[in-house]
Formats: sequence, structure tokens, C-alpha cells
Amino acid sequence: MTPPSEPVQPPIEGADGYLGTERLLAFSDGVFAVAITLLVFDLMRPSVEHGLVYALARLWPHYLSFALSFLLIGIIWANHHHIFTHVKRANHTFLMINVIFLLWVVFIPFPTALLAEYLSNSGERRTVMVIYSATFLVLVLLFNLLWRYGTYNFRLTGPNPDMDAIAKTNQSYIIGPIVYTLNVPLSFISPEAGLVVFLLASLGYALSPFPGSRPNTV
Amino acid sequence: MTPPSEPVQPPIEGADGYLGTERLLAFSDGVFAVAITLLVFDLMRPSVEHGLVYALARLWPHYLSFALSFLLIGIIWANHHHIFTHVKRANHTFLMINVIFLLWVVFIPFPTALLAEYLSNSGERRTVMVIYSATFLVLVLLFNLLWRYGTYNFRLTGPNPDMDAIAKTNQSYIIGPIVYTLNVPLSFISPEAGLVVFLLASLGYALSPFPGSRPNTV
Amino acid sequence: MTPPSEPVQPPIEGADGYLGTERLLAFSDGVFAVAITLLVFDLMRPSVEHGLVYALARLWPHYLSFALSFLLIGIIWANHHHIFTHVKRANHTFLMINVIFLLWVVFIPFPTALLAEYLSNSGERRTVMVIYSATFLVLVLLFNLLWRYGTYNFRLTGPNPDMDAIAKTNQSYIIGPIVYTLNVPLSFISPEAGLVVFLLASLGYALSPFPGSRPNTV
Amino acid sequence: MTPPSEPVQPPIEGADGYLGTERLLAFSDGVFAVAITLLVFDLMRPSVEHGLVYALARLWPHYLSFALSFLLIGIIWANHHHIFTHVKRANHTFLMINVIFLLWVVFIPFPTALLAEYLSNSGERRTVMVIYSATFLVLVLLFNLLWRYGTYNFRLTGPNPDMDAIAKTNQSYIIGPIVYTLNVPLSFISPEAGLVVFLLASLGYALSPFPGSRPNTV
Repeated sequence: MTPPSEPVQPPIEGADGYLGTERLLAFSDGVFAVAITLLVFDLMRPSVEHGLVYALARLWPHYLSFALSFLLIGIIWANHHHIFTHVKRANHTFLMINVIFLLWVVFIPFPTALLAEYLSNSGERRTVMVIYSATFLVLVLLFNLLWRYGTYNFRLTGPNPDMDAIAKTNQSYIIGPIVYTLNVPLSFISPEAGLVVFLLASLGYALSPFPGSRPNTV
Repeated sequence: MTPPSEPVQPPIEGADGYLGTERLLAFSDGVFAVAITLLVFDLMRPSVEHGLVYALARLWPHYLSFALSFLLIGIIWANHHHIFTHVKRANHTFLMINVIFLLWVVFIPFPTALLAEYLSNSGERRTVMVIYSATFLVLVLLFNLLWRYGTYNFRLTGPNPDMDAIAKTNQSYIIGPIVYTLNVPLSFISPEAGLVVFLLASLGYALSPFPGSRPNTV
Repeated sequence: MTPPSEPVQPPIEGADGYLGTERLLAFSDGVFAVAITLLVFDLMRPSVEHGLVYALARLWPHYLSFALSFLLIGIIWANHHHIFTHVKRANHTFLMINVIFLLWVVFIPFPTALLAEYLSNSGERRTVMVIYSATFLVLVLLFNLLWRYGTYNFRLTGPNPDMDAIAKTNQSYIIGPIVYTLNVPLSFISPEAGLVVFLLASLGYALSPFPGSRPNTV
Repeated sequence: MTPPSEPVQPPIEGADGYLGTERLLAFSDGVFAVAITLLVFDLMRPSVEHGLVYALARLWPHYLSFALSFLLIGIIWANHHHIFTHVKRANHTFLMINVIFLLWVVFIPFPTALLAEYLSNSGERRTVMVIYSATFLVLVLLFNLLWRYGTYNFRLTGPNPDMDAIAKTNQSYIIGPIVYTLNVPLSFISPEAGLVVFLLASLGYALSPFPGSRPNTV
């Protein structure tokens, strides 16, 4: 994908078979909300053997993977909405990319459950961390496809696109694929290091504002 | 169902007990979002016997039916919204047809779970493929009923219905019932062929724009 | 509850601590959508003993209770929205009544699962039908409380309430509590008769328009 | 956190990278709706030993914890919306606080399931009540952080903030953290007393209007 050139005159919104984005967002928000909430199901069956406190303490990989996947989905949701501060119309292809992207969001509880189940199992830890890393690599690639399809040549932006913010976001969204690509072999070499990268990535995102947005005055 | 004749003067929106469509859409989007997300539940319990990688590989019918049902529901959702680019009002009968249609959407995770469980079972493969095909045949018939009830004689369209797009959509929506009707006996004769038809149908839809909409400039 | 008298001048919307209804509706729609979709979970575990077709056929009470509860929740949802064609503001008490009402909506999958499990069990059929009937009696009473609290003396209606439609709805909403109250002892005497009443009630509702709404021109 | 001083001139909505709140609310409402509905799952598997009625009666801790958590989430939802009658814009930090807050909302079904399972177990009752109390203490602290971050110095309020209502709400929202902090050691000393405090707290809230809102004229 090449960087955007000078904006072509975008077609009038709603004309020529273009669709609005409200319903796409309502459906996507619903899918995000359900997928993120389903993560709690993995916490619900403590097997009590030596007292409840001990049984709960042994569940730490479940709490960790619950919190990690929740934050990562939450971050992806926030970025999904960032897309739609620039993308104002949809076409058939964009709709289909969004459906595939949502398929991957809905899939996340599965590798999360695997991570929770096998993180404390030294024989399978490597396998589940590679699966978990690969899942988020595909997710971030689909996310980039959604962003770049919608904004390339200002294909689906509104009549006065914020070219500067789009250019900055283009640069910023390169980081994710690079980090997540490197994290797949890293998770194979050292599952623990792969996990730390995920924790640092969510922390780093949480502390950094959107490209082009006003710095927070905490 | 006969093709639409000249448009009668539609009653003013909101008057005479007609209802708006926003709430119908909010509820329908919610049901679609939950039903599509519940599909992941079928993936959550790998039975580890000979190592995790082997156990996961054996789950391939679960991944396949998850992805297939997700795409088919996603396509139905996109078409459900296409209806409401033309239908702008609702009455009691339309509401009830939509409720029955949603009942069928919510039912889909059940034949999907059956397909996932028995696709690799040569004794039951035929049974589950016929059930799966019949489920989607009923769904596409209910979908057609919803579309044709709403647009026949421009019963529930807005004041200036796009007669050309409605006529084209009428023709286009004949294809689904024909393909899905033929697919039920085909799935009985050859379950594998029935499955291939579903995969081709979703691929074909994903690559073709809505009737009357602008071709994508990828 | 006495019938409404002459309308008092309603306070201006949004002033005096009154709240709008959009968010209440968004949340309620979400809860309805999830509760109605969760019903499918009861269908997901066929116990195969003598072949899949036989196992599925034996699940008929599950299909029946799934479809019945789906239709009854769908009808309650449609009526919940009918309330908000007249109620245009909310106060704290109304919000709390709605939360209790939604608690009961969310509870429905539980008696539905009991009905599905024990309908074909002659020893427990009576118990589950009485529980099922009592659940819907409480639901319809809470629904009436919500309607009558909101419209009594035009407490939460908009500036120009449709007095005629409200009066007709008041009369129409008496039927539900009467039928459902009688159905509890009937379900005790004859569980089969109690079930038939539910089927007739949903059929009757589906074929009759809202009070004051335009008859459908099918 | 210090009380708000004189309002600084708030930046124009939508400018400078500030975000609107509609999508945040749509997503939050979805998460609330799913989390509150998932509570019913804990009710779904009665283990029949001495007849269904007896089995159901023995499930009383499940009904109690279902209803209690439903009401507490319902109250938190109502208050979450109260925040947004004053907060009209969002920034990155506010978005992240809301994601962490929602993580905690989604977590609630887990301690609820523990409470339901072990409330009638004299050996583990203390443990589950302390966990339950601590969960809601963290929730109410995160809720306060959300409120105070958004309204401190009128950081994210609209152009004409209702200073009086915000000041009253500031005072009112001190009560929750105090009660819930005291309830953690109380639940350790007497689990039964800790449970009664929760029941009284939800009753007290249900009967008291929002700060600054018009008293209900029941």
C-alpha cells in the first residue's frame, strides 16, 4: 500500500451506492461488547481441592490472560473508533473487510482460553504463546487493512479529510504489525519474553494518545 | 409474490400507527452481534490426548464451521441492513416477521455445533449437512419474506422509493432461495458437495456488490 | 391503579432532573437481545445414543420451549417499545422499575431450561409448568407497572400525549395479567392445557395489531 | 482529589483531538447488557436428587446472588449514565479509565458465581464474602475515578456545566467508597452482616433519587 496522494474529489455521501457507517458501528460495537464480556467465562470453574483460597490462587494464569485479552480488545476497539473519525462512508469491500476483522475479534476468547489453561504447563507454554501471538498479528494486519483500504487516496473519507492526522496515523499504525510480527518468533524462543512484550505493548498504548490528538492534561 | 406495480402514495411516516425502524434495527443488530459471537463457544474445549498441537489440529471441523457460519451470518446481516436502505417504516406484521427471522438467526449456532461435531464422522455427516442446508434455506426464505413484505407495492418504503434499485434487488434475491433449495438434496446425495456450495456462495457474495450500488474501485 | 384523569401540564423535557429515554432504551435493547439469544444454549448438547436423528428427535421439548420463550420475549420487547411511543421522559423510580423488569427478562432462560428438561418427565411436568406460568405472570405484572407508572396522570409522557391511544392501551394491557393469572392454577390442574394457553396467547398477539395502530394491509 | 475550582474555559467540543461520548456509551451499554445477562448462567444446572422442588429450593444462594449482583450492576449502570449528563467529551485517559472500569464490570459474574456456590458452605462463606466485597470496593473506586477525572476542574464537561449538581454529586459519591471500604473487614468478621449491608445499600439507592434531580412524585 502506497501513501495517500493528493485527495481526489470524494463522491457525495450516500450517493452512488455508498453506505453510511452508523449501522456498521452499531453492529461492530455489539460484537466487541459480547466478545470482550465472554472472556469472563474462562474464570468460572475453580476446582476446589485444598481450600478455596488455594484453588483461586492457582487460577492466576486465568486472571492474567483475562485481563490481558480484555485490555488488548479494549485497545483495538478504541482504535476501531479512531478509524471512523476519518472514514465516513462504506462500500461493499469495506463492509466485507470489517466482517473478516470482526471474525478475528470473536475468535480471541479461544486462544485466550488456551493461554489460561496451558501457561503454567511447561510442555505446552511455547505452543499457546505462539498461537496467541499469531492471533494478534493477524488481528493487527486485518486492522491495518481496514484503515488503509478506507483512507487510501481518501477513498471513503468525508469531503474535507484531515490529511495531516491521516498521514500521522499511517505512520503510527506501522508500529503494531512490526512489533507483533517480531513477537511470534520471540514467543517461540522465549514464551515468557513474548508475554512481557504484550504487557508492555498494552501499557505503552494506554499511556500514549492518538496521533494528532491533544495531549492529556492529567 | 408478484412484482411491485406503480407506487401508491405512501402514508406519512409515523402517522396512522406506523412505527419507525431505529429500534427494530438496534434490537436486530444486538441479536446478530450476540448470535455471531456465540459461535466461538464451540471452539473452547480441546480434549488433549496426544499433545496440544495434535488436539488442536483435530478440531479442524470446528474452525471450518465457525468461520463458515460467521461469514454466512455476516452476509445475512449486511443484507438485512440493505433492506432498510429502502424500508423506512414498520407495521405490526413486519415486526412479527422480523422476530421470526431473528429466531432463525439465533438458532444457527445449534446446526453449526452439530456440523462441527459430526463433519468428520462418516456415519452422521449426511444428517448434519442436510440439517445445516435446511436451516439456511429457511433463513433465506424468511429473509425474502421480510424484504418482499416491506417493499411489495412500496408498502413500507419512504416517500420517494428508488424503484429501479428495488426491482434489481427483487431479481437478485431470487438467487438465494434457488441455490439453497437445490443444496438440500445435493447435501443428501453428497455432503462434501453441499459444503463446497456454501463456501462458493459466501465467496461469490463477498466479491459481488449490492444490486444498484457503485462498483468498488479497489 | 386508577385510570388517567385530565392531563396536568407536563414539565419541560430534560428540566428538573428528568432524564431522556434513549440510553434506557439502548441498555434495555441490549439486555433483550442477549437474553433472547442465550436461549439457544439449551439446544447445544444432544446426547447421542441410538444415532443422531433419533437423539435430535428426542430433543423436541427443547425446540418447543426455545421457540415459545423466544416468541414471548419478542412480544414483550415489541410491547416495551410500544411504551416508549408514549413515555418520553424517565425519573429515578421509572428507571428502577425498568431494572427490576429487566431482571425478570434475564431470568427467563432459567424456567425455559427447566421446561425443556422436564416437559417429557410426567413426574415433574406440573412443577415446571407452574414455575413457567408464574414467571410470565410476574413479568406481565412488572410490565404493567412500568406502563402505568409512566402514563398515569401523564406523569412521563411528552407535551401532547395521545390520550385516546393511551386509554385504549390501558384497557388492552388488562388482558395479559388476567390470562396469565388464570394460567397458573390451570397449569397446576393440567400442565398440557397451560402450555396450549401460552401457544394460543403468542399466536393471538402475533395476529393482532397494537391498540390504536393502523390495521395491516396484508 | 480536590474539589473543583472555578471553571476554566472548556475547549470547543470535537476540537483539539477531543472525542464525543456516543460511541463510548454504545460500547459501555453493550458490555453492561451482556455482563448483567450472563449472571443467569449460574442458575442453569439444578442437580436433581430428591425431586425438582427440593433441588430448586436448595439453590436459594444462587437466586440471592443473581438478584443482588443484577441490582448492583443495574445501579452502577444508572450512575454511569448520570456521569454523562455532565461529561460531554472524552480524551485518551478518560477512555482508558472507562476500559479498566468495564473490565471490572465484566469480572463481576466470577465473584457472583463464587458467592452462589459457597454461601451455604460455612467453611468458605467468609472467603467468598470478602472477595465479593473487595470486588465492589474496587468497582466503586474506579467509578469515582471516572467521575472525578471527567469533572475535576470541569475538564470534560460541556460549555455550561451545572456546577451546583456537580458539587452535590461530588459529595454524594463519597458515600459509596466509605461504605464499601468498611464492608470488607465487616465481611471478614461477619459474612452475614456484610451481605445485609449490600442488601440495604441497594435498597437505599433504589429509594433515593440522583443528586440534584427532582424528587419523584409517586
